Formats: sequence, C-alpha cells, structure tokens
Amino acid sequence: MTIPIEPLSPSILAIMYFGDAVFAISGALTAARYKMDVLGFVLIGTITGIGGGTIRDLLLGRTVWWTQDPTELILCVVASLATFFLITSDLTRRRGMAWSDTLGLAAFSVVGCHISLQFGSPFVVAVFMGMVTATGGGVLRDVLSNTQPMILCGQPYATAALLGSLSYASLRHFGFTLVPSEMVACTAAFALRASAILFDIRMGPPGQFLAFGNNPNHPKP
Amino acid sequence: MTIPIEPLSPSILAIMYFGDAVFAISGALTAARYKMDVLGFVLIGTITGIGGGTIRDLLLGRTVWWTQDPTELILCVVASLATFFLITSDLTRRRGMAWSDTLGLAAFSVVGCHISLQFGSPFVVAVFMGMVTATGGGVLRDVLSNTQPMILCGQPYATAALLGSLSYASLRHFGFTLVPSEMVACTAAFALRASAILFDIRMGPPGQFLAFGNNPNHPKP
Amino acid sequence: MTIPIEPLSPSILAIMYFGDAVFAISGALTAARYKMDVLGFVLIGTITGIGGGTIRDLLLGRTVWWTQDPTELILCVVASLATFFLITSDLTRRRGMAWSDTLGLAAFSVVGCHISLQFGSPFVVAVFMGMVTATGGGVLRDVLSNTQPMILCGQPYATAALLGSLSYASLRHFGFTLVPSEMVACTAAFALRASAILFDIRMGPPGQFLAFGNNPNHPKP
Repeated sequence: MTIPIEPLSPSILAIMYFGDAVFAISGALTAARYKMDVLGFVLIGTITGIGGGTIRDLLLGRTVWWTQDPTELILCVVASLATFFLITSDLTRRRGMAWSDTLGLAAFSVVGCHISLQFGSPFVVAVFMGMVTATGGGVLRDVLSNTQPMILCGQPYATAALLGSLSYASLRHFGFTLVPSEMVACTAAFALRASAILFDIRMGPPGQFLAFGNNPNHPKP
Repeated sequence: MTIPIEPLSPSILAIMYFGDAVFAISGALTAARYKMDVLGFVLIGTITGIGGGTIRDLLLGRTVWWTQDPTELILCVVASLATFFLITSDLTRRRGMAWSDTLGLAAFSVVGCHISLQFGSPFVVAVFMGMVTATGGGVLRDVLSNTQPMILCGQPYATAALLGSLSYASLRHFGFTLVPSEMVACTAAFALRASAILFDIRMGPPGQFLAFGNNPNHPKP
Repeated sequence: MTIPIEPLSPSILAIMYFGDAVFAISGALTAARYKMDVLGFVLIGTITGIGGGTIRDLLLGRTVWWTQDPTELILCVVASLATFFLITSDLTRRRGMAWSDTLGLAAFSVVGCHISLQFGSPFVVAVFMGMVTATGGGVLRDVLSNTQPMILCGQPYATAALLGSLSYASLRHFGFTLVPSEMVACTAAFALRASAILFDIRMGPPGQFLAFGNNPNHPKP
C-alpha cells in the first residue's frame, strides 16, 4: 500500500530531525506547565513534533512518512521522555518553551517549503506550506493543551515563518544551491523571531503598526 | 503527481469563489477583533476561506485543489488584505462578520454537496459533506482564534447548512437542472440563517424547542 | 474513484460499530450539557463517533470508509437522536458521558490498532494509531464544544488507550488468535479507565507520580 516518496537530501533530513526534536521538547514543556503525567508529555510532545509536517503531507496528498517509517515518531517520543526526566525548574520551562519553539519554527519553515517545492507545488503554495509546516505543530499543541494559540501572541510569529519560507523559495528560485539557501533562510526566520522575543517587538493593526518593548497591555510571555 | 479532478461548471465555480471571498472576509474580521497584525488577517482569513472545502476534499480522498492551482489561495489572501485596509469601525466589523459568514454558509452548503455528488458520494454522505464544507472553515476560524465556535451559538447555524445541502441534493435527485437548484438551495439556507440573526430565533433542547427574540439568557451577538 | 479496502472480520466490525455508537452517545451527552438543539446533538455525536477512525484513515492514507458506505454515519446519527429524546436528568447525563466515553475508548484502542496492523503499519505505528483512534473522537468533541480536552483530565486516559492498543498488538504479535486478543485488550483498557474513574486515580509529574482519591485540587468530574 506504500507510495514511494522522493528521497530527501541529507541536509534537509538533518534540519527535519532537528525540528522534530525541538518541537517535541516545546510540546513536552507545555505538558509540564499543566503538570501532566508521563504519557501526556509523550503525546503532546509527539503531536507537536510531527504535527506540522503531517498537515502539510495530508494537504499535498503526499504519504505521511512516519506511518511507514517510525523514525520521526520514535525521535519525538525520546525527546519528550528526556524532557520529562530532565526538566527541573519553572524558569527553565518557560524559557526552554519559547526558544525550542523558535528553533523549530525556523527549521520547519525551510523543510516544509523544500518538501513542497520538491513535490512540484507552485511557488505560492510552497511558501504557504512552509508556513503551515512551521506553525501547524504549535497550533495543535496549543489547541490540545487549551492554551491561547501562539500565532495570536501579538509578536511576529507566522511572520517569521513566512520570512523563512519565502526567502528559501526565492533563493532556490534564483538558482542558489541547497545548503547556503537553507542556512540563510533558517537564520533569517530565527533572527526575526528571536528579536521579537528579546525586544518584545509587536505588530498591530493599522495606526499602531509596530511597537517595541514595555507595552503595558501585553505582558511578556 | 497530479490526480486530475473533474471540471466544475461555471455557476458552481462562481458560487465557490464567492464563498471563498466572503469566508475570508469573515475570518479577517475575526482577526480584526483580536487586533492582529496584517499576517494574522491573511492567515485566519485564508484558513477560513479554504478550510471547509479542504476538510471535505481530505475526507473524500479528492485532491485538495488549491495545492495544484493557487487561485483560491490568492483570492483569499487578496480578500483578507482588502479587509485589513478597508475595515474602519467596530460596528461595521461585527455586522460584517455575521453577514459575510451567512453568505459563505449558504454558498458552501451548495458547493460542498455538489462536489460530493459529482465525486460519486451516496446521498447521505453528500448532504453531510455540504454541512462540513459550510461549517468547517468557520469552526477552524473560531478554534484558531480561541472563540466560542459559532455552531454552538444557540441559533440555527448548522441547521441552515443542512437546509441548503439537503434541498440542493433533493432538487438534483428529482431531476431539477443545475442553476435553479443552486438558486433555490442557496436562498433557502441564507433565508433561514438571516432570519435567525434578524429575529434571534433559537432552537433548544426538548421542552423549550423554539424561542424568538428577547431571550435574557442569550444576549445578541 | 474508490480504492477497495480489505474486509474486516465480523468481531472487529462488531466492536467498531459498538465504539461508534457509544462515542456518538458521549458526544450527544456533551451537546446536552450545552443545551444544544437537535442538530447540535447529531453533529457533535456523529463527529465524536467517526472522528477517531477518520483521523487514523487520513494519516494512514486509507480510504475514509464512511464516505463510501454511510452505515457508520447513519449509526452515529441514530445513536445521537436516540440520546436527544431519551436523556432526562443531569445526573444520568454526567455518568452516561463518562462511561460511554470509557467503553468507546476501550473498543477503539483495539479496532484502531487492528486496522493499522492489517494495513501493514509497523508495530510502533500501529500502537500509536490505536491511541489516535481511541482518543481522536473525544478530542474533536471537546475542542468543538469548547471543553477542556479529556486527555488533560489528570487521570489515566491516553494511558488506558495505550494499554489496550499495546496489549492487542503484543498478543497478536505472539501468535494469539483474534477474538481472545480482542477480549483481553478491551478488558484491560476498560478496567484501567474504569478504576481511574471509580477510585479517582491520578498520575502526575515526577515526585507526585500517583495519587488515589480525595485530591482537593482535582474535583471529581
């Protein structure tokens, strides 16, 4: 019953596994916030790790790869379990959650766009799929744990995913090779999201388009 | 990798694009309520516009059409952007939200049922798919924006989608031609939902089956 | 457009229909809590009944069976309607909700694992799919009705699904025949979840790994 899928290049595979693991950690840290049991950690962690790529594959009509080869599934379970046993303080938890999510967002915006382009999607669709892959797991995590979805956090979040995805697709379109394009796009997405967290950058409706730090209506996460 | 799908008739395509646009507007207006940035408008608008049809296609095993041809995707992005730049007052927002949602509900109940019938679904399944298409985008919009889902609003909502879907499937079943069936079914769904909003009609559990207006426990939306 | 799927054995079919019906009842009872109208009962009931299996089939790339043969769909509609007309007291509602959910969880953990194994999934994936099938419908029910998802209830819930799924896959792996494996695995999952409800067993983070009854921070459901 297996539809063979195109092999992925080693660098994309590496970024993908990295993204799986950090998103699984961010999911497990969310489970920690709700004082869940060990299986709750594993479940929320795993769904966060594989969620974005799964939504992308379902939309594209591509085989959901972890149902054939459970490597990603096991990786997410291990990352979640490790988080369960290693997490100690609340401060680590909050900071770890924000930063693992940021790393995953940057990694998956590139991976999602790459897989979609390789599958033959038009440019616009591939950029959108990069965003879906980067934000989908986090949305599932937040909906399942009954949290305000992070895409509504008021800071550039989906915007960072868009930056990563759009810059990767553009670089590839203009003939840049694989590894430099990956590095530039990942760095761009990470830099934007990281600045947003560090300097509390906010984008708002017209008239109050940008704000930096010390916003009394938006307490720091 | 493309599975060709059956062409849709011009009138169904027209209703579909109309539904995409008005649902995208309803999503963007929800984003406005939460004072999101421009990408939040585009994201929630687009997901609301294409969500119902996407869920239907995934369930049917049909190709998700906008992954091949991004017309619908771009239409939703444009409608969301236009909403971002044109929306001014809060009153416009609330009214616009309710009415664009109503128009989309009526349009998609017919489109969803038609596409499902054309795909070869049994009668019961096609009627259900009409409801799924009509309500799916709105449910995604409400879940993503952390709002009480509108299907729980207490007024006939899914019922209006059922009316549109069931009347379309029945008219087609009894041999009526395409355009009159579309018009009657869309009008029926729109009329029921519009009356529900205007006269605050409520359906409840047994014993309090119907109520009209001025219900102190249910403030107007 | 139909991809034929492998026939299911009569005992699996029986457990599947049983699971559909009891999950539909649990969904309809949730609708009762929110005083929804008759269509709300039918909608939430049906989505709860068919939701878990649908998510599993989408992930596996298997045909979503009720889109070809509406038997399950009609069964869920009938079970939801019956609940609407027969439910009387609030106490019945709360107890009925917990127990119908428990029966469905036990049934679907076995059915989901069986279908996944039969489809050719690796052992780990099949066990995970058992959990997805058993908990997916309930998660959709809780998200749609804006309730705290039951997988976060603090009691063993996903753990019970894992127990059913893992014991079924193991028994089959070690050569046990179909019907005894089904019976043992269903009973195990049911027994764990039932004990959790009756004795208010809770699993927690490290340091407070297990607790029984009378926990002031966790009022009984």
